[in-house]
Amino acid sequence: MKRVVVERKILERNESSAQKIRTILKNQSVFALNFMSSPGAGKTTIIEETIRMLKDNYGISFIDGDLETDRDAERIKALGIDTVQINTSGACHLDADMVLRAMEKISLDCDLLIIENVGNLVCPATFDVGADKNVVILSVPEGDDKVKKYPVMFNVADTILINKTDLLGFMDFDMSKVKKEAKQINPKAEVIELSAKTMSGFDKWISLIERWISEANQY
Amino acid sequence: MKRVVVERKILERNESSAQKIRTILKNQSVFALNFMSSPGAGKTTIIEETIRMLKDNYGISFIDGDLETDRDAERIKALGIDTVQINTSGACHLDADMVLRAMEKISLDCDLLIIENVGNLVCPATFDVGADKNVVILSVPEGDDKVKKYPVMFNVADTILINKTDLLGFMDFDMSKVKKEAKQINPKAEVIELSAKTMSGFDKWISLIERWISEANQY
Repeated sequence: MKRVVVERKILERNESSAQKIRTILKNQSVFALNFMSSPGAGKTTIIEETIRMLKDNYGISFIDGDLETDRDAERIKALGIDTVQINTSGACHLDADMVLRAMEKISLDCDLLIIENVGNLVCPATFDVGADKNVVILSVPEGDDKVKKYPVMFNVADTILINKTDLLGFMDFDMSKVKKEAKQINPKAEVIELSAKTMSGFDKWISLIERWISEANQY
Repeated sequence: MKRVVVERKILERNESSAQKIRTILKNQSVFALNFMSSPGAGKTTIIEETIRMLKDNYGISFIDGDLETDRDAERIKALGIDTVQINTSGACHLDADMVLRAMEKISLDCDLLIIENVGNLVCPATFDVGADKNVVILSVPEGDDKVKKYPVMFNVADTILINKTDLLGFMDFDMSKVKKEAKQINPKAEVIELSAKTMSGFDKWISLIERWISEANQY
């Protein structure tokens, strides 16, 4: 019982920091995406390709969450993007306070802030980091039963990217089942099939981001 | 600072329950394995095949940890194995208290207790569930950078199974790099390459379990 109270307090504090992030980003007209997935589903590779396709037309900054290394941040920095690394020292998710501190070290003179969360299909779902949209990635090799098994994560998604579709021929993966279960758990989330290897599906994904940014700028 | 104290108390309580589990299992001559991995790395499939290969010679019981569903437990129950489902209701890992309660509902008149943890490459590493050996699975599609990115998990492994080796030809995965990094982080963990699809590598894996059980019974 005591533990539940502590967790509620942590979440209340997190929500208040997430609200601060939203206010800062809105004042600067920055649109923010929070990428979440299991380890190895392809977050960094999708972010790399997304940045390559958008960076000529949009200013982009990047915050990377990782337990220990800065490998992912180095990959994004190599694209000429202003990048901050958050090492959580073992913590299984980013929280809004970590993102707030990282925002002090990064240029917010941009259109798009991309946040890459810690690779984990459970805990990051509970901690709002103040982003406008949550992007959840499921990769084909993880299997077609994951939406129902990790419903909290898929419930907070604004869009679900199904990655590594180039591997569909090599394993059992029932795409229509995944889409049906996603619709049951989260009817509002758009599902986009793509492959960061063949780049199939990226046009649709990039159009969605551009629509989101344009809609956000209307308010 | 307050949060750290709470976490330490939780871990101390967990360690005391893990110790209770070890005493119970030792008194009953039951050897216990704790399987951990990302979602979709192949825990349940490897456990299914392991049980198929061992069940004629060993009594086996199974405890399954999942956020919500009982899909994995149903798969193992179908093999005629005494099975208990723990639904963590969103918690990202099993803890020793959950396993203790599950042990009350299961036959311990067996040689081998298999525990399948929640799919998560971070949190389960911190919570000792009283098993004799920790088995950590990494699957090829997750990528060859995961050992260094999730060192806490690979550090608690007694063996590291590299699964889905049938997919090695279809993606960049530097096996020697993975083995080298595993050796740096955890020199004592044996690394076994296998595929639950082609069954390659299973003879080696099954021999290791048989050796572990035999060694445990000598004391």
